[in-house]
Amino acid sequence: MQKIEHIGIAVNNLEEAEKRFAQLLNTVSYKREVVESEGVITSFFKIGESKIELLAATKPDSPIQKFIDKKGEGIHHIAFEVFDIEQKLRELKTQGFRLINEKPKDGADNKKIAFIHPKSTGGILVEICQEKK
Amino acid sequence: MQKIEHIGIAVNNLEEAEKRFAQLLNTVSYKREVVESEGVITSFFKIGESKIELLAATKPDSPIQKFIDKKGEGIHHIAFEVFDIEQKLRELKTQGFRLINEKPKDGADNKKIAFIHPKSTGGILVEICQEKK
Repeated sequence: MQKIEHIGIAVNNLEEAEKRFAQLLNTVSYKREVVESEGVITSFFKIGESKIELLAATKPDSPIQKFIDKKGEGIHHIAFEVFDIEQKLRELKTQGFRLINEKPKDGADNKKIAFIHPKSTGGILVEICQEKK
Repeated sequence: MQKIEHIGIAVNNLEEAEKRFAQLLNTVSYKREVVESEGVITSFFKIGESKIELLAATKPDSPIQKFIDKKGEGIHHIAFEVFDIEQKLRELKTQGFRLINEKPKDGADNKKIAFIHPKSTGGILVEICQEKK
């Protein structure tokens, strides 16, 4: 893995969370992006080489809304950047990690992404991602 | 904030978690460190400019054991590096953030650290830290 690409944080109210995190991080959100397929609106903050990605639901059956209903607001996932997402997925599978996505799919921020099940990563939803060319 | 200094992850079994994270991150733990005052043993992995800090309890009344008993294994806190921890604490207090530590205390990895209550950070236990001179 290259770096922590971002930490995804599930929030109820995007405007309020953007204000709170702007104070905390001493920087403002530099973009919002809707991912229709996931029922989510995202808001990004840059911090060092990484990002904080706020995630709010755009519909009641959004995975983010289900997460918040079950666990409350908080960290939803950690994303690590890799050079070659397809190769890393093959490696992880061989090593016994349980993959949520066997093949990469399109994510926010011009990325190919795939999730690894928290059961095999000590309770953490891990995303691996690679910048699309 | 300068960067994500580390992500702290609560684990039951440090040896097992070190193996799992070495596979996931393609790198091995480079040090272990006991923080007696917190009842915790830590294990560090470098990833880009940040670290992953595994946290295991060394006694039953350790805050990490209480966290795991309540919430299970998973992300315990995110730590952001700051230039001046005392000034940042004053700013956060003025902005209405609820501080767990009004004054910095000694943490692992040669750092002064302080925690901010999850109530004021959208459900996330946030640590701010500064390298000791």
